[in-house]
Order: sequence, then C-alpha cells, then structure tokens
Amino acid sequence: MTTVPTPSLDHLTIDIDRLQRRLADLAAIGAIEGTEGAARLALTDEDKLGRDLVVAAMRELDMTVSIDRIGNIVGTMAGQIDGPPVMCGSHIDTVRTGGRYDGNLGVLAGLEVVEVLRSAGVTPHRPIAVGVFTDEEGSRFAPDMLGSMVYVGGMALEEALEIVGIDGAVLGDELDRIGYSGSSPVPGPAPHAFVELHIEQGPVLETEGLTIGAVEVVQGISWHQITIVGQSNHAGTTPMDHRRDPGLVAASCVTFARSLASEIGGAQVATVGRVEFTPNLVNVVPSRATFTIDLRNTDEAALQEAERRFHAHVVEVAAAEGCTVEVEALARTEPVVFAPEVVDLVAETAARLGHSVRRLPSGAGHDAQMMAAACPAGMIFTPSKNGLSHNPAEYTSPADLEAGANVLLHTLLALASDRPVAEGAA
Amino acid sequence: MTTVPTPSLDHLTIDIDRLQRRLADLAAIGAIEGTEGAARLALTDEDKLGRDLVVAAMRELDMTVSIDRIGNIVGTMAGQIDGPPVMCGSHIDTVRTGGRYDGNLGVLAGLEVVEVLRSAGVTPHRPIAVGVFTDEEGSRFAPDMLGSMVYVGGMALEEALEIVGIDGAVLGDELDRIGYSGSSPVPGPAPHAFVELHIEQGPVLETEGLTIGAVEVVQGISWHQITIVGQSNHAGTTPMDHRRDPGLVAASCVTFARSLASEIGGAQVATVGRVEFTPNLVNVVPSRATFTIDLRNTDEAALQEAERRFHAHVVEVAAAEGCTVEVEALARTEPVVFAPEVVDLVAETAARLGHSVRRLPSGAGHDAQMMAAACPAGMIFTPSKNGLSHNPAEYTSPADLEAGANVLLHTLLALASDRPVAEGAA
Repeated sequence: MTTVPTPSLDHLTIDIDRLQRRLADLAAIGAIEGTEGAARLALTDEDKLGRDLVVAAMRELDMTVSIDRIGNIVGTMAGQIDGPPVMCGSHIDTVRTGGRYDGNLGVLAGLEVVEVLRSAGVTPHRPIAVGVFTDEEGSRFAPDMLGSMVYVGGMALEEALEIVGIDGAVLGDELDRIGYSGSSPVPGPAPHAFVELHIEQGPVLETEGLTIGAVEVVQGISWHQITIVGQSNHAGTTPMDHRRDPGLVAASCVTFARSLASEIGGAQVATVGRVEFTPNLVNVVPSRATFTIDLRNTDEAALQEAERRFHAHVVEVAAAEGCTVEVEALARTEPVVFAPEVVDLVAETAARLGHSVRRLPSGAGHDAQMMAAACPAGMIFTPSKNGLSHNPAEYTSPADLEAGANVLLHTLLALASDRPVAEGAA
Repeated sequence: MTTVPTPSLDHLTIDIDRLQRRLADLAAIGAIEGTEGAARLALTDEDKLGRDLVVAAMRELDMTVSIDRIGNIVGTMAGQIDGPPVMCGSHIDTVRTGGRYDGNLGVLAGLEVVEVLRSAGVTPHRPIAVGVFTDEEGSRFAPDMLGSMVYVGGMALEEALEIVGIDGAVLGDELDRIGYSGSSPVPGPAPHAFVELHIEQGPVLETEGLTIGAVEVVQGISWHQITIVGQSNHAGTTPMDHRRDPGLVAASCVTFARSLASEIGGAQVATVGRVEFTPNLVNVVPSRATFTIDLRNTDEAALQEAERRFHAHVVEVAAAEGCTVEVEALARTEPVVFAPEVVDLVAETAARLGHSVRRLPSGAGHDAQMMAAACPAGMIFTPSKNGLSHNPAEYTSPADLEAGANVLLHTLLALASDRPVAEGAA
C-alpha cells in the first residue's frame, strides 16, 4: 500500500490571487452593478453560466465530472486508490441580492485545492471530490438545501422535480432547460467524509478577532406564524378596558422572545422578523396582528423548551386580552451535530497552520448538515465583515480567505490520507 | 315681546318612522350593496346627490337655504325674532365604508325637528338652523372637520380650496364641479348656540345600558409616527447580545402605551394602530420599525404628560438597544370643553323626557368642537351597537334614535326660547 508522505505536504499552500480571480470570474456572472455581489437564482440562465464556468474549470483540472438527476455537479480528482472520495463543496446559486462568497467560496476553494495538488504533482491516497449542490438558497425553489437533501435521500427526486418556483417555473423543467438534468442516480454515493468551507454569515469570529471557526453543530430551526385576532375599534372612543387589542398581544410576544432567549441562554436565539397589523391605521385598534417567530438552538431539548414557553406566553397573553390565536408551523429542523473527529481535525489543522480558531455553532443552514446524514461531516468558517451575508456588501478579507482555503486543503489531505482520522471515524 | 309657551310644547315629539325614511333615502345614495351603509366621499357625485336631497327637503320645509364659499349648507326656519339662529347639524359626507348614522343623523334629525314644528304650527322665538358641513370625515380631503373649521375661521378659505385629495382632485375644483361653491361668506355668522346630535361611535352608552350622552368635552388628539432604525441581521447567526433590533424597541413601546394609559388613568387612551417592519422577513432581524402612536385625553395637561412620558420611553429603550429614533408629528388638537350651560341643558332635557343619561367625553372629532369657537355648543350622543362606526354595520336602534331626536327637539326649543339658557349663557 502506498503511503502519502504527509510531512512533505505541509509546505503546500493555496494561491490566494488565483482563488480571488476565480471568485471574481464567478461574481461577474449575474453581477449586481456597482457592487461586488451577484444574483444567480437557482436554475436561471445566470446559474447555468456559473455552472458552465465551474464545470469547465473541473475539466481543465482533469477532474471527472458527473451530474446527477437533481443537477448536483461532482468533480472528482482520482486518488491512489478507488473508493469513496473525500468530498468538499457547497453551492453557487445565490439569493436575489447575493454576495460573492456565500457558497461560491466552498466550491472555488475546492477547485483551488485540486489545482495546488495537481501543480505539486501530488496524488492523494483517496480521491478528492468537489460538489456543487443545486438550489441551496431556496430563494427561487423552496425548500433550501434542496440538492444536498435529495443527494442524501432526504427528499424524493420526483417530489423535488415538481416544485414550483416563485416565478411559476417548475424545477424539473428548468433543470432540463439549462441542460443540468444529469444521469447520475440520487441518492448519491456516500463520500468517505465531507467538509464545507463557508463564510460565517455572523459576527462571532470578527468580534472575537479570530480567523477560523470549527463548526460543531448546525442549529435546529423552528419557524411559526402566529395570528392574533381581536376586535377592531376606534382609537378615540374605545376605553382601554373595552379593548381586545391583538397588536398588544403581538408586542408582548416580541418582548417575551428577547427575555426567553436570555433565560434559556446558551445558543438560544429568538427573532420576530415579520409583523403585520390589520387594518394598520393610526386611529384604529387593529382587528388582527400576524407575526412570525424564529427560534433556533443547537440543543433539541432546549429548542423544544423555547417553543413550549413561547407558545404558552402567546396563549396566556391572548386570553388575557380576549383575543384568539391561530398558529401555523412554517418550518422545523432539528440540530445537526457534526462528526467530532472532523471538527477536531479542522480545529487542529487550523492551529497547526498558525491560525486562531474556535469551535462554534452555525446559525444558518448548509449543505454540510445534509451530507452529515451520509458520512462524517464538518465545516470551516471564515469571518464575515459586520456579519453580513445575503447582501452584495458581504466581505471576507483576502488573508482570511487564504487561511480558510489552506485549512480546507490540509483537512482534505488528512482525510484523504491512508490513516484513519480518529478512532471514532466512520 | 312674544313668549313661546314652553309648557304647551312638551307634548311635541318627533316621528321616528319619518326620520328612519329620511335616513334610508340618504343611505340609498352611494349605497354599499348588501349592507345598510353608504359611501359618499366629500364632493364626489354621491355627495352632490346627497346634498341635493337635503336641500330639496329644506326647501319643502320652507327653510331659507344658504350655501357658503366652502360649500357648507345652512337651512334656516324663521323665528319670531330675527337674529342669530339656534343651530343644529352635522355632515353627510362619509368614509369609504360608511354607515347610515354617522353625521347623517344630526342633519336629518334637524330636518325632522323643523317638520315637527311646522306640522304643529309652532314658530320658535329664535330662528332654528340646520347646518350641513363640508368634508367632516377628511377621508378624501385632509384635514377632517374642514367645513366647520373654515366656518369659524380656523382655516383660510384660500388654503382650503387648494387642498389636493387622495385622488389628485383639488377641493375648490370639485366644489365648483358639483355646484356647491356658494356665495355666503366665510367665516360665517356666529349662531346663538349650536347642538349636534351624533352616534357615540364608542361602547360606553351601550355597555352601561344608557340612552343619552351629554357630551362635556372632545378629547385632544396627539398623533406621531415614530421610526426606529437598528441593524438588519441574520436571525440565526447573530447572537442576541449583538443585536440592535428596532422591532424590539417598537414592541416595547406598544406595551408601554397600554401601561401608560393605565397609569395616567382618567380619560387617557393610547393606541398603536400601525406597525411596519423592514424588510419584514421571518429570518431577518429588522433594520427599521415604524409605528404610530395615538394619544387622547380630555385634559390638556395630562395629554402633554402622556406625550412626554411616551417619548421618553421611546428614546430610552431605543438607546438601550443601540437604535436611533425619528419622530414625525402627524396631528395635534387640544381638548375642546363644551359650554356647561348647553351640557346641563342636554342632560336635564334627557332626564325630563324620561331617558337615562350620563355626561361623557367624545373620543372622536366633531363639527361641534369647531362651532364651540363661535358660540356656546354641545352634543347629544346616542348609543352605537358594539361601538361600531365608519363601518356599514354601524347601528343605533329606532328607540335610541327617537330618544336622541326628541332630546335634540326640546334642547333646540329651550335654546330658541326667549329665556336665557342659564345664568352663564353667552
């Protein structure tokens, strides 16, 4: 058995200028004028052009390209042995007001890793693959993380192909139209391991002055829409003790959400991002108030406690005000815990390369959480300036991009070596 | 000097069927199909037809009709003496979803009073006039109570004629178009006294099982629009202690408004009827929250205290959350106290006629509060089912309408007699 001479690879390093050029070339497709950002909604013409760019780059790097029936692209660099590859990757679709790093970084840094190995004449022990997952953002076709969900069997192909987008287009038709309805079967083959490099999309690393995040867990998400129905009344002629004001109930729930997050503590976050009053007039007590509650936690039991206490508050305050409550569940995912051996490896690799690092949860959803159902998976976070994402002003410094891509390179090399990652590796 | 033989007039009573027919005939103009309500926005074709109906009725009753330069109609029944008339009246314009009683009752009950006197062959000592004021609702041309405001010199005619409506029409043009740009000067002549019969538009009389309200005061109104600006952030990736959430500030202000009204007590009411978040998405901490605050009180000092304390709360909570505050004043009127001798007369007349009665404030604005600047003025309230108004379902029972119109009849007769109303009568 051939052994990859690990010590001799420590000197390998990615080329930040080349990575930046790849990011710029991709951001030029669907570019949002006057910004660094781009709009490439899933399965649009812009998404097709972005995919073409990535596929061409994979072919230039002598990677084997396969496209599956939901349009996921997997480019594979052969290893010294056959068998399941070590996979990295992410997505290149964006929200309507996308930045240049979200998703794209994970894909293009994967290509950069392959180019470094090719240039150095290194053949990894196991194959290394770069995945580009369809419709991660969910902005055109809900739900999000669709391609990776179908890849791991979390949604049936037929169901996915019939999804109707916000513009009335059918997902399967659009996949055919742009020429990315491939022949590889889904669910796809389980990789040896999966690692996704991504911008943090939050303020933690920047605030703490750190370079690398080793993501331990993706928060579970609970979304509900709550409608409080009371009695519309004249703001002048209705004494306070005659009112059944759904706006007051909604407001009480907004302030309660903040105190609830504080009381539960830990990773608990709670957000009321949407509120609507009816009829929404200055001099009319509203008849109806609708709002959403977004609760997230890395711990499922704590998330359930947050849900329970929030709903109890809604019901209690509404009853006290003589209002009724309608609750609609919008979305619910459980927390996903990444493989400890991959998390450890990311943290150790970052430290070995001289970067400051902390373990942290992800507050956003990522393809890696889907892939975690198929193989040991983990994520590498790089800092986001001002925590911004889904915004053309999204920014990560070249030094941080370079650090993140180098951690990806050496994490993949370790996973692709012939040594087990850790005792507990699957 | 001729003396009106008051005792012999006590038997006079209005004809409820005739009053109901008048209300139905007017509600048929601009009728909202399938309801009892009507839409006659000020100075529209429907308003013109309503005016034509009222003017024709005045002429049938041998009243002298004058129309002033802002379109106010005054029909006068001659008295035994010349001189300022005792005036009643209200308005016949409606909001877009109007009921059949708001405004119309005060005008049509005035005509009924005149018809009763004509039928009985009674000539009052002083003239009795019925006023129909232009654009009381303000729904098409802001501000509300416009015609009566111009009548008493509270707004210059030229300014009023140039007001542009919600549909782009110019008030003066529309007045010409419908043929109600009259020649009588404004400000108009001060009446001897003014009494407006109106539905309560609130729940107090119905809840307390009373028939008549003797209105003592119209609440002062303070409207502000407040915009809180914070920082839009990802609902999952932004820890609670990194947030600057303007929605939280707005919510805190909504709940504070309720407790403020309770602490100040008395007639204080406080309403947040309008709230808007930007971008208003389930998974985004809003960047901006805009809301309105409607504060009303019958006591100016207390109203000022409410304004002061509310704004202090806004500023304090916004600062604690790292948000900025923009405040826009939308409207402000001071409380109007009606002439005690008119209020007493209404209450005594109601009691003499055997009706239950209480003194109460008006939470809504009325033409009578404008007329109070010109002469002793007061109001008679009848119950509103469920407190509803500005709604086709607005309803007052025939028995309550009859009681209200009879109180108007005998209040006007007393004011029109040759005896002073009270020692303090102006």
